Amino acid sequence: MNSCEMPASGPTEEPARVTESGSRVHRFVPGATHTWRGVPVQEYKAAADHHCGVRRSVLAGEAGEKTSFQVRYFEIAAGGFTTLEHHAHEHVVIVLRGVGQVRLADTWHEVAVGDAVYVAPHEVHQLRNPGAEPFGFFCIVDAQRDRPVPVEG
Amino acid sequence: MNSCEMPASGPTEEPARVTESGSRVHRFVPGATHTWRGVPVQEYKAAADHHCGVRRSVLAGEAGEKTSFQVRYFEIAAGGFTTLEHHAHEHVVIVLRGVGQVRLADTWHEVAVGDAVYVAPHEVHQLRNPGAEPFGFFCIVDAQRDRPVPVEG
Repeated sequence: MNSCEMPASGPTEEPARVTESGSRVHRFVPGATHTWRGVPVQEYKAAADHHCGVRRSVLAGEAGEKTSFQVRYFEIAAGGFTTLEHHAHEHVVIVLRGVGQVRLADTWHEVAVGDAVYVAPHEVHQLRNPGAEPFGFFCIVDAQRDRPVPVEG
Repeated sequence: MNSCEMPASGPTEEPARVTESGSRVHRFVPGATHTWRGVPVQEYKAAADHHCGVRRSVLAGEAGEKTSFQVRYFEIAAGGFTTLEHHAHEHVVIVLRGVGQVRLADTWHEVAVGDAVYVAPHEVHQLRNPGAEPFGFFCIVDAQRDRPVPVEG
């Protein structure tokens, strides 16, 4: 495992389902990596050179919901970054912790807690964490979406 | 205007569009009511007896995006509450500020910053703020959705 790979952890034990209809409450567990009870932490993608130090938690959209969207939480460790890529589907990003940077076309924008970013179709984009603290954000996408196309940086 | 009605405000002046493709960065403006630059604050619904003290900001989904979802932020003032209702579409709620309560079927659950709630189809639900500080949360929904059906409390 190189310095960029991060082990995934299994789901926590607390059952999250609280009603017969299937509604759920996932308790937030702040920590070195933020997690939610009942939500497993996954690797962002299989290890590769073009991304580094990214963990993912899927809060909604992969547990039998009928939603046309998925709500994911990504956390980028210090020095980490996502893939530089583009695709037809859109991203809505909301920062939960730390300070990071988002590239939109050729320009980097610093973003901090609470800032919201809309990434338009086909925009070349990337997120990175040049700081020393974790950078965490929600990223909401259509459930049905095209595959990202990586871009040479 | 009774004590439950809250004035809406117009959009802030800072342009949020940052690329030719239409990508946007909305800066978070924490305050008595949390807002985002470039996002107007709206009333939750027309004033009525069955909800109180709720403001809404639509962060994505009403500005020409192609997303199949909308990302809204609701803030409930001290003592306020949303409509007790049900509908076929699902909610994903993530708490941004304060402490509040969510009713799922017949049970109230306390929720605090970071907690995530999935409201299943047809679940009778309501959110309320019994505390003294604002209670704010993101609520993500399908763009195409059925009309809520109010329930006698």
